[in-house]
Amino acid sequence: MSLVVVGSVAYDGVETPHGRVERMLGGSGTYVSLAASYFTDVALVAVVGEDFCASDTELLASRGIDLEGLERVPGKTFFWSGVYSADMNDRTTLCTDLNVFADFNPKLPERYRSQPYLFLGNIQPTLQRAVRGQMRSVRCTGGDTMNYWIESARAELLETLKDWDFLLINDSEARLLSGRHNLVQAARDILAMGPRTLIVKRGEYGAILFRDGESFIAPGYLLEDVFDPTGAGDCFAGGFFGYLASCGADLRGPHSDPGVLRRAVIYGSAMGSFCCEKFGVERFRTLTRAEIDARYQEFEKLTKF
Amino acid sequence: MSLVVVGSVAYDGVETPHGRVERMLGGSGTYVSLAASYFTDVALVAVVGEDFCASDTELLASRGIDLEGLERVPGKTFFWSGVYSADMNDRTTLCTDLNVFADFNPKLPERYRSQPYLFLGNIQPTLQRAVRGQMRSVRCTGGDTMNYWIESARAELLETLKDWDFLLINDSEARLLSGRHNLVQAARDILAMGPRTLIVKRGEYGAILFRDGESFIAPGYLLEDVFDPTGAGDCFAGGFFGYLASCGADLRGPHSDPGVLRRAVIYGSAMGSFCCEKFGVERFRTLTRAEIDARYQEFEKLTKF
Repeated sequence: MSLVVVGSVAYDGVETPHGRVERMLGGSGTYVSLAASYFTDVALVAVVGEDFCASDTELLASRGIDLEGLERVPGKTFFWSGVYSADMNDRTTLCTDLNVFADFNPKLPERYRSQPYLFLGNIQPTLQRAVRGQMRSVRCTGGDTMNYWIESARAELLETLKDWDFLLINDSEARLLSGRHNLVQAARDILAMGPRTLIVKRGEYGAILFRDGESFIAPGYLLEDVFDPTGAGDCFAGGFFGYLASCGADLRGPHSDPGVLRRAVIYGSAMGSFCCEKFGVERFRTLTRAEIDARYQEFEKLTKF
Repeated sequence: MSLVVVGSVAYDGVETPHGRVERMLGGSGTYVSLAASYFTDVALVAVVGEDFCASDTELLASRGIDLEGLERVPGKTFFWSGVYSADMNDRTTLCTDLNVFADFNPKLPERYRSQPYLFLGNIQPTLQRAVRGQMRSVRCTGGDTMNYWIESARAELLETLKDWDFLLINDSEARLLSGRHNLVQAARDILAMGPRTLIVKRGEYGAILFRDGESFIAPGYLLEDVFDPTGAGDCFAGGFFGYLASCGADLRGPHSDPGVLRRAVIYGSAMGSFCCEKFGVERFRTLTRAEIDARYQEFEKLTKF
């Protein structure tokens, strides 16, 4: 019973007020998989170039992530670099070299096709749809998108969303997709596009879950030092979906336990907060499930009244 | 057992994307008093001019607010006008005519001096201190300030804060007062200035309570339409302190019930959300305690996991 994660595996160069790293493991597929691996079996689908380091493969493998779907092709691995503002609420992209990612056309290994859970990271919507088409009996499909696809591939994105059980995007993307500033109104419009469940990420302010006319608001964890927010949203996705998969959740039915989804949002928030504590994926070298559960309990203390 | 509220009673001109009102009742003392009046007896200390309308006095009186401390002097009532941005997260002040408020030197009626609860709205810090000096046996003093006083009267403000049991400010003010961007660090510094309890308001994102090394995060209520955010922060203060007063809370002791403070934050959030539903103080013409308690329960549903 695995969660299949499709996304980018990349190298990132990141500068924050706390320092600068020229080149480190990154990419949405990497972060989602690492975070989800604390909850369920994960099978990754991505592409890297000849420059991809053995030590980075080893980190992923050390978390038990199935790498049969990690294709290695001639050329260089996707590279992105950016610099964060002083308050880390904004970032400027310095460089995006798609490299081998430009021709990424995910093909799922045979073993992956019978798995029940599928997360579609932020890639071209038509590719997302094609990947889902390769799955034989998927129980729950969720994914992410970004402003670029909302603006440049809107029709394909709307077609793709029809088949998803949940959409997980940030507030600015929700506003762009719906054309509405108010999040309650935006959520209503987006839920009418197909997904029965919508999670809107609000960065340091947490996340909101919308489903069946109800809402759940999770706060952002109060970190005393945010070293690097890169990947935090993807770690949210990994914690959220990883926990759902670990519960065998089925989001299609009207009678699924809403408590499972709420707890999944909290686990997602916890994973996003851990991600920010060190540069890149560093925190995942030492993070334990016990630490995650302790943070879950902190969320209870932070919000209970 | 009354809550004494010191602040401005004013006329406001407000433009939001939902409309424009040339002149309506406003001011921090007005909003705090109206919101608190749903929970406890309120005694208002403020100054107005000869142009202050009988119908506005009647609205305050209709909520049972003690107006012996509402001084009427020759001249015009404080007038402020502003226009909100399309997303209502920013506003531009068009006009600030202090008028009779420029010489406001609050003198507490004899009856007020023996009350246990004192809220000091955003006025000059030295005046705030002088008001507190007029109280004979105050059990709990809390208040607000603003960027202007933090920058122009910092020494007086720090002296004033030493005597307060709680400080209630927004996130940008907390950052300015502490010189720190991170709210956890900012809160630690501010709590060392005197108040044992700090509440940081975050606008649509809710509020955080800091006390005795613990935090409580309340979300902002999800409104489908925000008509006018003017006064929402003051209504938060009124709901928060009004509820504390209704419980006979004493924030000085180490063993006071932290649950009372958390519930007070939720009542504050509820009152702030009602305020935004109509222009100015309009919502308080019809609002009932039953509606407030229903919204409190909605906060439970919104946050429980």
